[in-house]
Amino acid sequence: MGREIERKFRVAGDGWRQGEGVLFRQGYLCTDQDRTVRVRLEGERGVITIKGRTEGLSRAEFEYEVPASEAEEMLEKLCLHPLIEKRRRRIDHAGRIWEVDEFSGENEGLVVAEVELDEEDEAIDLPPWVGEEVSDDPRYYNANLVKHPYGTWGLG
Amino acid sequence: MGREIERKFRVAGDGWRQGEGVLFRQGYLCTDQDRTVRVRLEGERGVITIKGRTEGLSRAEFEYEVPASEAEEMLEKLCLHPLIEKRRRRIDHAGRIWEVDEFSGENEGLVVAEVELDEEDEAIDLPPWVGEEVSDDPRYYNANLVKHPYGTWGLG
Repeated sequence: MGREIERKFRVAGDGWRQGEGVLFRQGYLCTDQDRTVRVRLEGERGVITIKGRTEGLSRAEFEYEVPASEAEEMLEKLCLHPLIEKRRRRIDHAGRIWEVDEFSGENEGLVVAEVELDEEDEAIDLPPWVGEEVSDDPRYYNANLVKHPYGTWGLG
Repeated sequence: MGREIERKFRVAGDGWRQGEGVLFRQGYLCTDQDRTVRVRLEGERGVITIKGRTEGLSRAEFEYEVPASEAEEMLEKLCLHPLIEKRRRRIDHAGRIWEVDEFSGENEGLVVAEVELDEEDEAIDLPPWVGEEVSDDPRYYNANLVKHPYGTWGLG
């Protein structure tokens, strides 16, 4: 298992729009506050991820690779719908990898940048295309974007 | 993936009490009617199993082996409690393997025998220690035994 510690930001401008990225399709078998179970296709790779409750910036995380065809079948037949679709770009900035997710489908218009940390209070150098921090806002949890997609937020 | 087809029975008498069996500890990350996610320790083996809705005697099933230490951690920290504990014996009868689960903990007193089939209408030869069939009774689903353990049924 790991413990995932991450900070999350909206983006500002287009500086993050570099390269093609990889198409992600993901869905949830469970979106409880205390535990989520996610099925994801990362390009051709299938993954199941189980996470615990978020405490501060961190949460327990268990991840297992599964055959892509089985991930596909679980997404179509077992996961809660709508599925989440996004294009993920990995961008190196000041020695850290930022993951920028450009959502499509029901969450079209939303772009979120995440960076993983080793410690909650670690200093980070923010890329110039990073905007408002949303680490503490549960609306941005992908599990919540299933139930309340960005298109329904009424924020423009 | 597989499709699981099984029939389930109570037992009658003690003829099933053969050998030591293996201790199972299992818990659920999700007990929806449409999808269950189960974490199990089968002796020293960790397994995650995802099942779809039961339709007749069958349901979709995906199973993945995981490290036992991670299964243990998910059981303690993430799964719904109480956990389910049972001793499983595998008994050969007339060319078929019967799995007999003797529950302990909150489900003490319950013993259930299951047999897997290739087809729903397959003929089977019942062992003499098999009692009433309960395939259609949702109370016997292990996911339901978490919420309504046998000890609370009031059946003696």
